[in-house]
Amino acid sequence: MKIIHTADWHLGKRLNSHSFLEDQRYILSQFVEAIVEEKPDLIIIAGDIYDTAHPNKNTVAIFEEMVQKLNLQMHIPIIIINGNHDSKERLSYGASWFNHSQLYIRTTLSSFFEPIDFEGIAIYTLPFFTVSEARVFLERDVKSYEQAVKYFVELVKPQLDTTKKNILVGHFTLNGAPKSDSERDLTIGTIESVSPQYLDGFDCVLLGHIHHPFAIDYEHIFYSGSILQYSFSEVKQAKGYRTIEFDNNGQLKQRFHQLQPQFELEVVEGKYEDIINGHFDRKSDNSYFHFKLREMQHVTEPMQKLKQLYPNTLALTPEVITMIDTEQTAGEIKQLEPLDIINAFYRMHTEKDLSEIQRDHLISLIEEERGTH
Amino acid sequence: MKIIHTADWHLGKRLNSHSFLEDQRYILSQFVEAIVEEKPDLIIIAGDIYDTAHPNKNTVAIFEEMVQKLNLQMHIPIIIINGNHDSKERLSYGASWFNHSQLYIRTTLSSFFEPIDFEGIAIYTLPFFTVSEARVFLERDVKSYEQAVKYFVELVKPQLDTTKKNILVGHFTLNGAPKSDSERDLTIGTIESVSPQYLDGFDCVLLGHIHHPFAIDYEHIFYSGSILQYSFSEVKQAKGYRTIEFDNNGQLKQRFHQLQPQFELEVVEGKYEDIINGHFDRKSDNSYFHFKLREMQHVTEPMQKLKQLYPNTLALTPEVITMIDTEQTAGEIKQLEPLDIINAFYRMHTEKDLSEIQRDHLISLIEEERGTH
Repeated sequence: MKIIHTADWHLGKRLNSHSFLEDQRYILSQFVEAIVEEKPDLIIIAGDIYDTAHPNKNTVAIFEEMVQKLNLQMHIPIIIINGNHDSKERLSYGASWFNHSQLYIRTTLSSFFEPIDFEGIAIYTLPFFTVSEARVFLERDVKSYEQAVKYFVELVKPQLDTTKKNILVGHFTLNGAPKSDSERDLTIGTIESVSPQYLDGFDCVLLGHIHHPFAIDYEHIFYSGSILQYSFSEVKQAKGYRTIEFDNNGQLKQRFHQLQPQFELEVVEGKYEDIINGHFDRKSDNSYFHFKLREMQHVTEPMQKLKQLYPNTLALTPEVITMIDTEQTAGEIKQLEPLDIINAFYRMHTEKDLSEIQRDHLISLIEEERGTH
Repeated sequence: MKIIHTADWHLGKRLNSHSFLEDQRYILSQFVEAIVEEKPDLIIIAGDIYDTAHPNKNTVAIFEEMVQKLNLQMHIPIIIINGNHDSKERLSYGASWFNHSQLYIRTTLSSFFEPIDFEGIAIYTLPFFTVSEARVFLERDVKSYEQAVKYFVELVKPQLDTTKKNILVGHFTLNGAPKSDSERDLTIGTIESVSPQYLDGFDCVLLGHIHHPFAIDYEHIFYSGSILQYSFSEVKQAKGYRTIEFDNNGQLKQRFHQLQPQFELEVVEGKYEDIINGHFDRKSDNSYFHFKLREMQHVTEPMQKLKQLYPNTLALTPEVITMIDTEQTAGEIKQLEPLDIINAFYRMHTEKDLSEIQRDHLISLIEEERGTH
């Protein structure tokens, strides 16, 4: 029994108004090709199929096309839960018909208590929910996401068949998982991360939400990570899918499989002139660049010029503060004397130190400002 | 073999910002109940499922719920084509899975050449298309909707099996069908109505688009009409569905079955005072009223007052011109002398005729305007 674990497709995602739709089509084609080789018994997609509750028709068409290939053409059973970005109603449209070909789209809390059975493995689906939805469903006060998960697991525990392998599929934050810029908070005002102790009783937990495939380090709890880098905080993160198998002794074996995107995200720091002249390390001229550049004060329309050379440039930040001393933190800079900060700034622009006359003038201005006259 | 013919559900339709969603849920429940009794072999929905290409999730949920009852619970095959209001892409989402339970959603022109067979009956689906889509598909110049339909029928004719009954399902305007205010034009700038001669070769043609179930009078061509009255030009129109059967001699037998809506549309003409005092004929105080009222010049906020008594009032028009002589047409009124028109207007407001002095003054003003001084 081989299970493919994927999540966080975020179809329709945009970054700085760039649409990733073609990148998503590309990476999912790679995924489908990989699945042809893998010949899995089951695919699990742990939420955030779409980036928005209102995906447009081209976005929906990509999902439909990919799932059609996997489920109808390759006859692979698929289990999908909604994430916090998906509309439960829109995602589950047609689910009653999809069940017939073992495409299970689970969006209700009651579905958690109706596991899907596969040859000695029981899959328990806990779709993304809000704390208030949990309160209504559980008919009791729920203070946090963690508490909700705790209650759900307590409720389902008596029905777990320990002669089987029991797998939990969820979409939430596990304690200690580092977050990136592209994951939207699950809750507002409550602690949303869940302690792994509350997931006891399951042989394996397959999660969505966190985009880093190695965000946590447990023997049996995994994030698949997103299918693409979706923010510059995910630069250098491998993206792909995970295979989960139980060997003859019932031991869990897992492996992460990287997929190669069409273009990657890259953050590049340097001097404007060096970048324009191509004097910097990069994976491709077509990467999605975030340039953080020095010495570009006198360049007009730098973004336009950069895009002529690097068409997929998505962001440009002039680097100023770090010029004082790239080793210094903001806290350390605050402890510097004002004159030293001004001198560093002056040097950055002119490559010279302040003259004696300038220093004297600045000192008197600073003292005047401090009211020590 | 009993076929149910319905069309023009227009789910999500609004009239004067009133949503018909609850009325649609009600009438479709009536429809489903009727189907339980009818026990048909097939249901055909000839387009305009939705009123908009972007139905909201509650609207989509009603469609899903009703079709689920009919197709999955009652196991009735259903054939659906898109109308001019539907998004082909959104309507056909999931169609590859739906086919498995004989729910056929047809939105492509190529589907016309892949008839669906039912016990000696072949159903040819011609979904709504634009003239330019027809040009691309047919790879030839197409000047009108009629010409497109003509070409399609010519193309399909050689494959018609005359030992079977051949049924065409379409969504277009047949020549001579009277239109209502709630049907959007199919084409801009070209003649959109189709002459019935171009439909020769089919034993039966089941159409959507025109909301009147008796819009045309043929032995074998029918509009089912819409499921509800969707504009005040449809007042007093029966709404429901049609049954189509072929008897043992192959004779077509059809019957229209009326469904009773929760509330009907009514147009009421009268004096404001009479309406406020309830002195007028009506089906229900809860009807969707369009009031055309006289003698309400001095009433403040008449709409608010009317809604207190008739909460579903949707429109209010002060009647002015018709006061001159309700038997006169606009053309006839134009032939009246200006003084007579002004006098009628004055009488409507004051219930008196113009005085001699007023008439003299007006005559001189009118002559001055005409430049006959």
